[in-house]
Amino acid sequence: MRPPFDPTLYLVTDTGLSRPRPVADVVRAAVAGGVTAVQVRDKTASRRELLELTRTVQTALADRPDVAVIVNDAVDVALIAGADGVHVGQDDLPPAEVRALLGPGRLVGFSVSSVDELDVALAQPAGTLDLVGIGPVWATPTKPDAGNALRPDGVRALAAAARAGGLTTVAIGGIDATRAAEVAATGVDGLCVVSAVCVAPDPAAAARALRTAIEQGRVAA
Amino acid sequence: MRPPFDPTLYLVTDTGLSRPRPVADVVRAAVAGGVTAVQVRDKTASRRELLELTRTVQTALADRPDVAVIVNDAVDVALIAGADGVHVGQDDLPPAEVRALLGPGRLVGFSVSSVDELDVALAQPAGTLDLVGIGPVWATPTKPDAGNALRPDGVRALAAAARAGGLTTVAIGGIDATRAAEVAATGVDGLCVVSAVCVAPDPAAAARALRTAIEQGRVAA
Repeated sequence: MRPPFDPTLYLVTDTGLSRPRPVADVVRAAVAGGVTAVQVRDKTASRRELLELTRTVQTALADRPDVAVIVNDAVDVALIAGADGVHVGQDDLPPAEVRALLGPGRLVGFSVSSVDELDVALAQPAGTLDLVGIGPVWATPTKPDAGNALRPDGVRALAAAARAGGLTTVAIGGIDATRAAEVAATGVDGLCVVSAVCVAPDPAAAARALRTAIEQGRVAA
Repeated sequence: MRPPFDPTLYLVTDTGLSRPRPVADVVRAAVAGGVTAVQVRDKTASRRELLELTRTVQTALADRPDVAVIVNDAVDVALIAGADGVHVGQDDLPPAEVRALLGPGRLVGFSVSSVDELDVALAQPAGTLDLVGIGPVWATPTKPDAGNALRPDGVRALAAAARAGGLTTVAIGGIDATRAAEVAATGVDGLCVVSAVCVAPDPAAAARALRTAIEQGRVAA
């Protein structure tokens, strides 16, 4: 029932870091370079602005139905835009309520930064969650309110437990091309990046470098 | 198809101004004193907090199905909570999209502060909007980003045009018991208040005083 979702290299957009380029331009280039899924996130935007941003990203990826477009936090925006899913944090709307609103045909992701938070994810009714974002792997300036750094060993432990619970796992927080192999080797299904792509002068090249590192890490795992 | 909605005295909640009292306590007292509709607004709350706040207000008014509970801005919260409607501003999700998400069985309100903004309201497809909030009547510290003060004469002109377009009208911004009669005399269907009730030591008494002033203003109109 869910849309296609390849978690391998999951880009979370950052409007400020993308400037002066429109977010949609960065996304299109990044997908050409190997990004496999996109989350539209802009915590400073109004819901109307976030809706417009989501639509520009969807338009930019109109020829790439294999790349899921997921909206951060705003379930109403995702519904209006017909997005492929929603990602919520621990302080956003509760996952079970989000699932009830979205129905079975969309993806629901959830952020976890500790064993306790993963337990919340694993305690959700069956079919509620598709994936968990595990992080921060390392401290990151793009999300200063995230928890303590898990480091790759912490990610490995949480990912194993999450996967045992049937959830797809992505790691997030401070991941760039120099560290991607190490994270991929933890056994997660995919890596989330923000600044490693959004600030890159050439987002396509940045995505290619990340994909290469992920392959290296997976072989080493 | 819409829930009951009496706009006469429409309370917009303010969590900070209600402290140390819980918002739901202020709401319950205010409704006992004569508030006829409630909008749950907290621009600083997360969506999860706003959902919890909405539910506490609904619980506090469980024995008052005649009093509509409307959520500010957050369509997803209103859907999850089963609220009676949503109020959106010019920068929130577009009214037609909100109506499409909510369906015909809930109220949709929209803020207007000028002739141009009222024209946006009047240009919506039939059945999109139920009411417009016209303001600010006077400058108000609870919404410093609102436009220039319309004063009662400006409210009167906008309200006449809105009512001619089939919309219910409420005035908002700086209204207290000493000014309510003057605003009620402009011909609006109701008055919105925030601080006049939320900071009152006795919200029931504050609501009663406002209702008395509204009746005086209507007689004078």
